[in-house]
Amino acid sequence: MNRGIFQAAVFSVLIFIIALAPQDSTDTVILGFTPEHSKKQFELEQKFDSYLSPDHLRDRMKRMSSEPNQLGSPHDKKNAEYLISLFKKWGFDAHIEQFKVLFPTPKERVLELVEPTHFKASLHEPALKEDATSSIQKNTLPPYNAYAADGDITADLVYVNQGVPDDYKELEERGISVKGKIVIARYGGSWRGIKPKVAYEHGAIGCILYSDPLDDGYHQGDSYPEGSWRPDEGVQRGSVMDMPIHPGDPLTPGVGATENAHRIPRDSAKVILKIPVLPISYADAQPLLAALKGPVAPPSWRGALPITYHIGPGPAKVHLKVTFNWDMVPLYDVIAKMRGSEEPDQWVIRGNHMDGWVFGAADPLSGNTAMMEEAYAIGQLAKTGWRPKRTIVYCSWDGEEPALLGSTEWVEEHADELQKKAVLYINSDGNSRGFLYVGGSHSLQHFINQVGHSVIDPERHVDVIERLRARRLVNGDKEVANGKDLTIYPLGSGSDYSPFLQHLGIASLNMGYGGEGGGGSYHSRYDSFDHYRRFGDPSFEYGVALSKTAGRAVLRFADADLLPFHYSDMADQVGEYLNQIKKMIGNMRDEAKFQHKLLRDSIYILAADPTKTYNPPKTLSDVPYLNFAPLENAVAHLKNSAASFDSAFSVQMKKGVTLSSAQINALNDALQTAEQELTDKGGLPRRPWFRHQIYAPGFYTGYGVKTLPGVREAIEQRNWNEASKEVGITAEAINRYSQHINEAVSMLR
Amino acid sequence: MNRGIFQAAVFSVLIFIIALAPQDSTDTVILGFTPEHSKKQFELEQKFDSYLSPDHLRDRMKRMSSEPNQLGSPHDKKNAEYLISLFKKWGFDAHIEQFKVLFPTPKERVLELVEPTHFKASLHEPALKEDATSSIQKNTLPPYNAYAADGDITADLVYVNQGVPDDYKELEERGISVKGKIVIARYGGSWRGIKPKVAYEHGAIGCILYSDPLDDGYHQGDSYPEGSWRPDEGVQRGSVMDMPIHPGDPLTPGVGATENAHRIPRDSAKVILKIPVLPISYADAQPLLAALKGPVAPPSWRGALPITYHIGPGPAKVHLKVTFNWDMVPLYDVIAKMRGSEEPDQWVIRGNHMDGWVFGAADPLSGNTAMMEEAYAIGQLAKTGWRPKRTIVYCSWDGEEPALLGSTEWVEEHADELQKKAVLYINSDGNSRGFLYVGGSHSLQHFINQVGHSVIDPERHVDVIERLRARRLVNGDKEVANGKDLTIYPLGSGSDYSPFLQHLGIASLNMGYGGEGGGGSYHSRYDSFDHYRRFGDPSFEYGVALSKTAGRAVLRFADADLLPFHYSDMADQVGEYLNQIKKMIGNMRDEAKFQHKLLRDSIYILAADPTKTYNPPKTLSDVPYLNFAPLENAVAHLKNSAASFDSAFSVQMKKGVTLSSAQINALNDALQTAEQELTDKGGLPRRPWFRHQIYAPGFYTGYGVKTLPGVREAIEQRNWNEASKEVGITAEAINRYSQHINEAVSMLR
Repeated sequence: MNRGIFQAAVFSVLIFIIALAPQDSTDTVILGFTPEHSKKQFELEQKFDSYLSPDHLRDRMKRMSSEPNQLGSPHDKKNAEYLISLFKKWGFDAHIEQFKVLFPTPKERVLELVEPTHFKASLHEPALKEDATSSIQKNTLPPYNAYAADGDITADLVYVNQGVPDDYKELEERGISVKGKIVIARYGGSWRGIKPKVAYEHGAIGCILYSDPLDDGYHQGDSYPEGSWRPDEGVQRGSVMDMPIHPGDPLTPGVGATENAHRIPRDSAKVILKIPVLPISYADAQPLLAALKGPVAPPSWRGALPITYHIGPGPAKVHLKVTFNWDMVPLYDVIAKMRGSEEPDQWVIRGNHMDGWVFGAADPLSGNTAMMEEAYAIGQLAKTGWRPKRTIVYCSWDGEEPALLGSTEWVEEHADELQKKAVLYINSDGNSRGFLYVGGSHSLQHFINQVGHSVIDPERHVDVIERLRARRLVNGDKEVANGKDLTIYPLGSGSDYSPFLQHLGIASLNMGYGGEGGGGSYHSRYDSFDHYRRFGDPSFEYGVALSKTAGRAVLRFADADLLPFHYSDMADQVGEYLNQIKKMIGNMRDEAKFQHKLLRDSIYILAADPTKTYNPPKTLSDVPYLNFAPLENAVAHLKNSAASFDSAFSVQMKKGVTLSSAQINALNDALQTAEQELTDKGGLPRRPWFRHQIYAPGFYTGYGVKTLPGVREAIEQRNWNEASKEVGITAEAINRYSQHINEAVSMLR
Repeated sequence: MNRGIFQAAVFSVLIFIIALAPQDSTDTVILGFTPEHSKKQFELEQKFDSYLSPDHLRDRMKRMSSEPNQLGSPHDKKNAEYLISLFKKWGFDAHIEQFKVLFPTPKERVLELVEPTHFKASLHEPALKEDATSSIQKNTLPPYNAYAADGDITADLVYVNQGVPDDYKELEERGISVKGKIVIARYGGSWRGIKPKVAYEHGAIGCILYSDPLDDGYHQGDSYPEGSWRPDEGVQRGSVMDMPIHPGDPLTPGVGATENAHRIPRDSAKVILKIPVLPISYADAQPLLAALKGPVAPPSWRGALPITYHIGPGPAKVHLKVTFNWDMVPLYDVIAKMRGSEEPDQWVIRGNHMDGWVFGAADPLSGNTAMMEEAYAIGQLAKTGWRPKRTIVYCSWDGEEPALLGSTEWVEEHADELQKKAVLYINSDGNSRGFLYVGGSHSLQHFINQVGHSVIDPERHVDVIERLRARRLVNGDKEVANGKDLTIYPLGSGSDYSPFLQHLGIASLNMGYGGEGGGGSYHSRYDSFDHYRRFGDPSFEYGVALSKTAGRAVLRFADADLLPFHYSDMADQVGEYLNQIKKMIGNMRDEAKFQHKLLRDSIYILAADPTKTYNPPKTLSDVPYLNFAPLENAVAHLKNSAASFDSAFSVQMKKGVTLSSAQINALNDALQTAEQELTDKGGLPRRPWFRHQIYAPGFYTGYGVKTLPGVREAIEQRNWNEASKEVGITAEAINRYSQHINEAVSMLR
C-alpha cells in the first residue's frame, strides 16, 4: 500500500508533463509502437485500406442472406462452408469446429382471445412484394422465443408494461396480482428474457411479448416497406434463455458442448424458462390489449396503439399453446488463424456471428461481411510477404442468436489455452450507417480512440471519433468539449464478447456503426438484403468503415512492440463506478427515510383517489452505512499503479523501447493476462459463470450492464450483508490487478 | 433605503420569536382578527357551513346547463335573470350591468383535404344517447375559434406540433417554411391563441387546431361516454383573440363597452387575428395528418394517432373556409352587493363567470353554482342579523369565454372606484373532485393557507391544505415536508382575475378543486350535466368545499379587524423570481457560448445525417451581464419592509389591536391599495393594459404566467436594452410597494 502511494508521488510530475503533451502526437505515434514502427504501421494500414471494397460486402451479404440461416438450417451450414473456403483462399489456417447443442424450435403455436370475444392471432409475417426473400417459407422459423417452456394454458390476461421489476410495484399499488395469469409485456426497457423470468417470479403462468408501435413501429417512422420501421405484422423473435445466469448450451454449463461432453438433464437446466412465452406483432396484440379492462395503465406504460391501455386482469382471457421440438443440433464455428511470426502464442481474436433468426442481413451479416473483408485484406497483405507478429484468429460464430452458443462453447472448450494466449477479443455484430459506438475494457479506451482518429467517416469526412464527439456535443454533453478521449461504454451482454470478457477476463472490445440506419427489421423476416440495402447502409461504406476500425485494432494489437494498454482510463472509470454506487446508496437511504415518514403520516393514503384501489408501497428496509474503505483503497491503489504504468510505458516508447527482447516478451506476457486478475474464481453470487468483477449483464436488465456488479446488485436488491462481502471480493480483484500492473511497471524500468 | 435596513436589524429578533411560535396558533387565531374576534368568526363559519348543500349546487347546475348558455344566447340571459332573482331573494342589492360587445359567431365553416385524396371534415359533434343535452341543436354554436379572421383559402398543409416559437426552430432546422401554408397544430403547450398568432408571424395564411388523443382523448383514458375523455369527434372550441395584448372587447380597449362608448373600427383592433382558424376533432385531423409527407416529426411532436407523424409541407393540400357574423351583442353582468356595516367603501369582490361555450356544466357552472351557494349562505347569515363590516360584492360574469369580456368591461368601467374601494378579488371557474389549487398575490399566501386549514377534504377528512401537501409529498416535493405554508402559484391568465390583478393591481386569488375529476369535456358539446355528474364531482361535495373555501375568504376579509396581508411571502417569492431570472440569463450565456463553439467548429453539420435537409441553428446573440442591482436592492428593501410589517402586525394582533378606530381605518386604507403600487402606469412593453410588474400572462404562452414579466420576457426575447430598462421600472414598482408597506408599519406602532 505504502509503496503504491510512494510511486504515485514520484510519478505525478511525469503525468503532468504528459498531460501537457500536444494532442497531435497521437496522430504520428501509435500507442504501443515506437515512432519508427508507427510509421511502418501507418503504411500497412494504407495498404490494408486499399483492398477493402463495399461491393465485396454487398455481394457477400446478398449471398449469405438469400436463404434462412438460423442455427441448424442448411443455409447456415452452407455459409460456414463458404466462409471456410474464403479464409483458406486468403491464406488462413481455417477449420470448422463443431459442437452439439440443445436448440428448441416451435412445433405448435396458438394464441387466441377466448373472452369476452374471440380473436385468433395470425402469428405470421406475410410476404411483401418489395422484399425479395420475404416470400421464402422453406426452412424458416416462425416467430417464437427460444428456451421458453412448452405449455397449453388459458387464463386472464394482465398488461405489465415492459415487465420489469418496477412495473410489478405499480401493479401491487393497484392491488393487481399476476398469479395464475398470462401477462402481456411490450418489448423494451430490458432484455426480453427478463420479462418472462420476472413474470414467473410473480406467479404468472405464461407470457406474451409484443412490439408496441411506440417503440418499434409507425410511431417511430414509416413502416416497412414504405419506410424501415416494423410493419403491423412484423414480429421480434429471440431467445428468452436466462442468460444472466450463463449463456451457452443449457445442458453443458461451463464446458464445451462437444459430442461426448457431460450433459445435465434438460429439466435440471437452470436457464430454461418454466413458463411458455410467445412473441407477437402489434396487429395481433391490439385486440388483446383492447379487450382489457381494469385500471387505466399509468402514463409511462401507454404505447401508441389507438386504444386506452388498461391493465386488467381480464375480462380478456387468452389461450396460449406453444410446444417445441427439443432437438440437439450441430453447430459450426468457423475458426481461421494466421500464425504470428514472433509471438505465435499471443492471439488477437476477432469475431462476429453468422447465424440469423431468418435471413439475418443486418443482424449479423452486416457485421460479418465487414469482418470477412478485414480477413480478406489481411490475406492480401500476407500475399505481399507481411506476417503479423502475433497470431490473428478470425471467428465466425454460429448459434449466437439462441444463446451466444458458438462463442460460449468454443471459449469453454478452449478456456485454458485462451487464458494463456488471448491478448484481446474484438467483437462486432449488426452494423449500419451513422456513428461509431465502442464498448469494452477501459484499459483499451485510449487505444481505440487512437484507432478511431485514423478512420475517416464516409459521410462527413472527419475522423469517426470527432464525428461521434460532434454528436455528443450536439446532444448537450459538454464534457466531451475538452477534446480528450471519448469514454467507451462498459459491456453488459447481448453478443459474443460475453464468454471472453466476463467468463475468462480477456480484455475485449465491441464495436460497430449505427444511429442513421432506420430500425424496424430486428429479428424479423424483414431483416433482409432488400431492407438493408435501402435503409441500413445503402452504400456499404459503413461496413468498410467497420472493416477499417476493427481491422486496425487487430493489426495494431498483432504488431505492437508493447501491448497497447492504458490503465489510467480503467482506474478512472472504476473510481467513477464506485462514486455512482456510493451516491446510489445515499439516495436509497434518503428515499427510505422519506418513505418511512410518508407511511408514518399516512401521506400515501391521503394523496390517493379513494374511488380507486390503492395500496401504499411496502416499507423499504433501512439503508445502513457500508464500509466502502476496501474498495476506496483499492481504487486509490489502482490509480497509482495505473499512473505509474502509463508514465513508464510512455517513457519507454519514446525511447524507442530499450528493453531486451526477453524483457519485452515477459512484459507483454504480463500485460496479456492483466485483465484476468479482475475476475474472481467464485464468480458473482448465484451466477458463478460470470467472473468479471467490473462488468456483468444485469441480473434484472439482461443486456444492460452493471459495473462493479457484485456490490451494485447486492445494494440494489437491498442485500446489505452480501454487499459488504462483495465489497471485499471486488476490492481483492482490483488489488490483484493493481499488483499485476505494478509488476509490469517494474519490468518497464 | 438606509431606514429599511435599520428596521430589518431591529425586527430580526422579533421574526425569530415568531418563527418559533407553535404552528397551531394559526388554528385558534385568524390572521387579521383579535383572539376574541377569531372565536366569533369561527362560530360564524360554522353557521355558514350549515347552510351549504350539495343538492342546491346539483339542481342549479342542471337548470343552468339545460340549454346552450354562451354569450348572447337566450338561456344565458335567462340564467342572468335567474341569478338576479336569487341574489335579491337572499337580501343582496343586485342588478344587471349591461355592456355591448363584439362577438363573432360562425356563418360558414368548411375544411376539406383536396389533395392527394379528398376528405371532408365533419366539424360536427354528434348526439350521444348517454348524454341528455347532446342532442340539442337549437341556439348552439358549432366548434369554432372566436376572433379569428374570415377567410377562404387553399394551400399545402404543415404540421407544426404545438405551434409555439420553439417548434418553428425545429422547422427551420429542417428547412421548412410555413409561408403561404396552412398549419395544423395540436392543442397543448400554450394557450390556444398563441398558435395562430405565431403561425401568422411566420407567414402562415391559416391555422387548424386539433385535440390529439395523446393529450386529450383515448390515450388519457376511456373516451366519452364510456369514460370521461374526449371522444373522437369532440372538439375544443375557444377564443383565439390576442389576449396577451389585452382582454375584453376588441373595440373598446381600456374603457367599458357601454352603449355609447367610443369604439375603434374593427379593422384597427389589434387583438383580432389576421388569419382564419378552425378547431377540429382528432377524427377529422387524422386523414389530414396521415396525408402529410416530408420529414418524420421529431419524437416530442408525435401524438397518439395510429400514424407516422410527418411535417409536410404537403402533398396534403387543404381548403379552409370560415366566415363569421361580426355581431354586437348585449352582455349581462350580474352584480350583487351586501353593504358593509362599518367600512362600506371597502369592497371584497367575488366572481365566477356564467357563460359557457355550449352547456358549460363544468366550465363555468361547477364554479358558479359553488359561488352562488356562498351567496345563499351569506344571505342566510344576514337573515340572522349579521352584517359584514366591509361590503361584499358577488359578480356573475357574462362573456368570459370569448375574451374575459364581462369582468374586463366592468373593471374598466369602474376602474377609479375599484382602485379606491376593492380590497380583494376572489375568482373561481371550473371545479371538480380532488385537490385545492390556489394562485394569487403572494401577500395572500398565509391568509389562504389558514383558510385551507379550516376546510375539511370530503374524501380524506383532513384539511385541504394537508391533503394538497400529501399529494406534493407523494409527487416527490420534499420541500413541503417542513409543514410550513404551501406556496400559492403566481397568476397568468385564463379567467376573470386578469383585469382586477393585472390591469388595476387589486390583490387577487384564484381557486378551485381538481385533479381527480376526469377531463375530456373541455369546451365541447359534452361539457354537460350528464358528464359532470358522472365524472366531475358526482357528490357535488367538492362544490361545497369550494363554497367553504372561497366563502371563508370572503367572510374573513369582510370582517377582519386589520386586513390580513402578510408581505414576507411576497418578498420571498419576488426574491425567488429574481433568482430564477438571474439563473436563466446565466444559462443563456453559457448556451450562447457553447453554441458559438459548435457553430465555429461545424459541429452541428458533422453530427447531422447528410441524407436529410438540415440547417444549423441561427447564431444566438451574445448575452451581456446586466445590472440587476436595482432589483436586488429593491428585493432586499422589500424583505426588510415586509418583515417589519409582519412582525408589527403580529404584535398588534396579539395585543388585541390597541389602535384607535381612526388609526385602524387609515391602516386598512393603506393596506387596501398596497398591491396597486406594484403596477406601472405605462404597463408592460407593447401591452400597456397589463400594468402589474410581478405577474402577467406570457406574451408567447398566453395562460402561462411570467413573473417579473418586463424583465423576464425582455431577456427571453434577447432584448438586452429593454431588459435593463425594465429592471429599473420593476425595481421602482417594488420600491413604491416597500415604501407603502413602510408607511403601514409606522401606522402600526
